[in-house]
Amino acid sequence: MNLRNIKLIIEYDGGRYKGWQRLEAAEATIQGKLEEVISKMLNTDTEIIGSGRTDAGAHARMQVANFHTSSNMTIEEMRSYINHYLPQDIVVKGIEEVEERFHSRYNVKSKAYIYQIWNSSIPSAFQRKYSLHIPVVLNISEMKKAAEKLTGTHDFIAFSSVKKTNKSTVRTISEIKIERVNEMVLIRVEGDGFLYNMVRIIVGTLIEVGLGRKAPEYIDSIFKAGKRLEAGQTVAAQGLFLQKVNY
Amino acid sequence: MNLRNIKLIIEYDGGRYKGWQRLEAAEATIQGKLEEVISKMLNTDTEIIGSGRTDAGAHARMQVANFHTSSNMTIEEMRSYINHYLPQDIVVKGIEEVEERFHSRYNVKSKAYIYQIWNSSIPSAFQRKYSLHIPVVLNISEMKKAAEKLTGTHDFIAFSSVKKTNKSTVRTISEIKIERVNEMVLIRVEGDGFLYNMVRIIVGTLIEVGLGRKAPEYIDSIFKAGKRLEAGQTVAAQGLFLQKVNY
Repeated sequence: MNLRNIKLIIEYDGGRYKGWQRLEAAEATIQGKLEEVISKMLNTDTEIIGSGRTDAGAHARMQVANFHTSSNMTIEEMRSYINHYLPQDIVVKGIEEVEERFHSRYNVKSKAYIYQIWNSSIPSAFQRKYSLHIPVVLNISEMKKAAEKLTGTHDFIAFSSVKKTNKSTVRTISEIKIERVNEMVLIRVEGDGFLYNMVRIIVGTLIEVGLGRKAPEYIDSIFKAGKRLEAGQTVAAQGLFLQKVNY
Repeated sequence: MNLRNIKLIIEYDGGRYKGWQRLEAAEATIQGKLEEVISKMLNTDTEIIGSGRTDAGAHARMQVANFHTSSNMTIEEMRSYINHYLPQDIVVKGIEEVEERFHSRYNVKSKAYIYQIWNSSIPSAFQRKYSLHIPVVLNISEMKKAAEKLTGTHDFIAFSSVKKTNKSTVRTISEIKIERVNEMVLIRVEGDGFLYNMVRIIVGTLIEVGLGRKAPEYIDSIFKAGKRLEAGQTVAAQGLFLQKVNY
């Protein structure tokens, strides 16, 4: 029997969660919450395949996942059941039946993340959980020069928290866009794939340049050294949003 | 001895609080938190005068308050101390020394509130605490016609939760602006003063019109009857923001 393949578009405020990936039952994770609700709906243990992990505390405006089922519930019935039983900080924004071979993780072409920096001497009561607060004015044009050097195909080993690995650490960043919208500085990073903590370390490195502690050429020296310690800090997860997954 | 008069501009996420006004010590209120921190800073019990109350659960992008002190701390020292010790959901955005006769409440010329409605069939993981969710599309142009009828000087007794009172219930609304920004409908109400729950009841009434349950002429009949029961519901406080106080 062919199983139906159901694709979900999910938005979540990750503040309360230990990230996407299911851990022990007692730990709150996005995947765990979705599997709990969907398994109950379908009356059978159901695995949800996500496009990839997101870090503890990080958010998503568009995470993609899929699951297989033999149920004959309609898509509308599923959407309504799932959103009714999910906690309010996880929302299924889209649901559709897709072809059998669609796989949320294997079929990813590229992903975009946005990192939010509240760049004002005065903190924000409303953005505090969705941004990193940097009270000193960032030099955006210097950050853009550094971002230019990060764009393209490189070995990003120095920009990741992975331990030694046999897998390739070469990735391609197609674009880094940096803009200021009033007090908020938005850094959008798009690429074919990301190593563990890579976006947060890229942002931490760009901040070093934005604060004037380093010149844009800093990036060249990090790539050359290939060592995690050369790059900037891993900035707080609460400013990070998975923005888009492209297939 | 002349006391110094210190004016504060305050932003707060009211979600955790029982409103502006100080209650019993055990109850979390914005005024209570500010008085706690400022009294400690000045080493003497200090009363904070606000521009007016805000409801339990309602927010402020700009609340104004003032207090008197004989301290010779600088304004910068005060700002830094207060923001350091306040919880992160209350922020002093501005602080300045003003003339002796300035009074946050008596000197108010007008106030503006914004009410946020998340108007989409799909809820929002990020706006859930800062808006009322209405899944059915609102008819904005009909709401604007009703808003037009609310503007001006009227007896707003039907739009308030006050019990019988000897005080005047006549107020002047100078403007109601309604606009849609993507999924969010923003209703901005500006006036010389507001009765208890008045903005939330005005919004509840406009929603009746936006949903097509009532025609804009509904407003005329509410004014004519002058009865609370004729008007719409008191909508949830979590969508309400004190936006501006003018002196």
